[in-house]
Amino acid sequence: MHAITIPEPGGPEALVWAEVPDPQPGEGEVLVEVAASAVNRADIMQRQGYYDPPPGASAYPGLECSGRVAALGPGVSGWSVGDEVCALLAGGGYAEKVAVPSGQLLPVPQGLGLKEAAALPEVVCTVWSNVFMVAHLRPGETLLVHGGSSGIGTMAIQLAKAVGAKVAVTAGTKEKLERCAELGADILINYREQDFVAEVKDATGGNGADVVLDNMGAKYLDRNVRALAVNGRLAIIGMQGGRKGELDIGTLLAKRAAVSATSLRARPLEEKAAIVAAVREHVWPLFAGGHIRPVVDRELPMSRAGDGHRVVEESGHIGKVLLVTAS
Amino acid sequence: MHAITIPEPGGPEALVWAEVPDPQPGEGEVLVEVAASAVNRADIMQRQGYYDPPPGASAYPGLECSGRVAALGPGVSGWSVGDEVCALLAGGGYAEKVAVPSGQLLPVPQGLGLKEAAALPEVVCTVWSNVFMVAHLRPGETLLVHGGSSGIGTMAIQLAKAVGAKVAVTAGTKEKLERCAELGADILINYREQDFVAEVKDATGGNGADVVLDNMGAKYLDRNVRALAVNGRLAIIGMQGGRKGELDIGTLLAKRAAVSATSLRARPLEEKAAIVAAVREHVWPLFAGGHIRPVVDRELPMSRAGDGHRVVEESGHIGKVLLVTAS
Repeated sequence: MHAITIPEPGGPEALVWAEVPDPQPGEGEVLVEVAASAVNRADIMQRQGYYDPPPGASAYPGLECSGRVAALGPGVSGWSVGDEVCALLAGGGYAEKVAVPSGQLLPVPQGLGLKEAAALPEVVCTVWSNVFMVAHLRPGETLLVHGGSSGIGTMAIQLAKAVGAKVAVTAGTKEKLERCAELGADILINYREQDFVAEVKDATGGNGADVVLDNMGAKYLDRNVRALAVNGRLAIIGMQGGRKGELDIGTLLAKRAAVSATSLRARPLEEKAAIVAAVREHVWPLFAGGHIRPVVDRELPMSRAGDGHRVVEESGHIGKVLLVTAS
Repeated sequence: MHAITIPEPGGPEALVWAEVPDPQPGEGEVLVEVAASAVNRADIMQRQGYYDPPPGASAYPGLECSGRVAALGPGVSGWSVGDEVCALLAGGGYAEKVAVPSGQLLPVPQGLGLKEAAALPEVVCTVWSNVFMVAHLRPGETLLVHGGSSGIGTMAIQLAKAVGAKVAVTAGTKEKLERCAELGADILINYREQDFVAEVKDATGGNGADVVLDNMGAKYLDRNVRALAVNGRLAIIGMQGGRKGELDIGTLLAKRAAVSATSLRARPLEEKAAIVAAVREHVWPLFAGGHIRPVVDRELPMSRAGDGHRVVEESGHIGKVLLVTAS
């Protein structure tokens, strides 16, 4: 098969479409013939040499895919050759085939195409596990999403609206904010021109956000804590603004608030399977009902994965950038 | 009646036992004739002028008491004049009488004396709400308690052992650590001589603490995060080591860990009542069974409250310092 390899870390040109051995499905794994994968920021860090795959994971990048089941490893039940699926991966999605633990497979949601389903696993599992399983966003509460027009952001807006929450977003352009509004966002904040702490407080009668979903880390830590409501929960899923920041414990304590930080990739199989099962139960029916949908910026041939990385690195996209195979 | 007043903020001598008007129980409140109160660090901060009572609370210090019900305000049911009780207070415990919202009353636990019951409300509610309701300590997990010989610490050790957890404590003397061991602590760390991060990791096969109960705030923030296990929860209840500290979000994210901070005093009545109800359901039976007990360092006449503050400020105590009335 072919896969995107990284002979030497570097810029987008470091990604090389090459002939490599086929993966073999191990105990409890399913072999998927990949129709599409999608670009995540973690792939860019892996390409740059800053984020090695966890032990046991594929050496190729790609944290999600869609495709058809091509073979079953020993001990797998509930799936059949030919099933149309999408999957959360620890790596290896940028390839024509990938072996996946069966607990990380999901059926293609009713009403969606096979390729666009590749836009879902990483964002849905990340948003559901953080905003709902960890931070317990409830109907009537306010969620603040940074990077509202990103893949994560566009899904967070839709899921929060679907459960009856109010949604505030930050983004860097008018066009991106308008797209967030189309998806249901109630409070639109241009982070280049406005102070998100003041805007969120203004729009919530001084209360602030009950939950903040943050990808900036250190750079936003103090402001995120100030933007929280009493009993607020800050869920950090990225460190695009650095890893060490000053925490004002006095403000946190006065608000009885909490800060959590998680990533999906390094979790043990049983935790990933639990998240995937919760997503299938709670989120998949929302696709069938037409309440939420994947937001796809563009599709590119997988052999040109570097072009997809350029788009994401320049933040020129809204939603997900897909990489599709010729199959 | 008499109460401890604070005519001017200052040292322990600022506390003045004076004749003051009796409080009147309002709607939903109970008037308690106080047998004993207990010293908390918040009382010391209030005496120093750094911690004003929340709006509507008594101007006198004292966050807990025991005594007898002397009168019922309008709309109170479930309590009778003469009942022996203890209570979580927003203030006013250093007095011969105090008016308390009825949701913050508890019966004196079976098998305990009236005065020693004053050692319980603040520590039991603080430990239960943080270690169990927020951080969800589970059987088989490891709890690290800083200040293991304090009032909070001695109760945290006993409650964690009662649910089947392993307990690590820090304290500053051999005598205090021995007392923690008598209460059930498994891992004893002298913070003056040992590195608690290394000791906790050593004693848990490299895993670290699943839950940390911390009263130091900024000074211990980085070390507490390093001491956490994967999926660990740091619960901060005090800032004796400062309020602003550097948070290593990268470490938090790699561990999928969380930091929370709470205080009891400023919570709305319904949240206090929910905590008190949970304590009555889950903790009170443990006293009746003899599984846990209050740890009382000494009793002093309430009119000499300043002496009690000196003891706590010098950290010369193990467990709680009680202030008893003449009644």
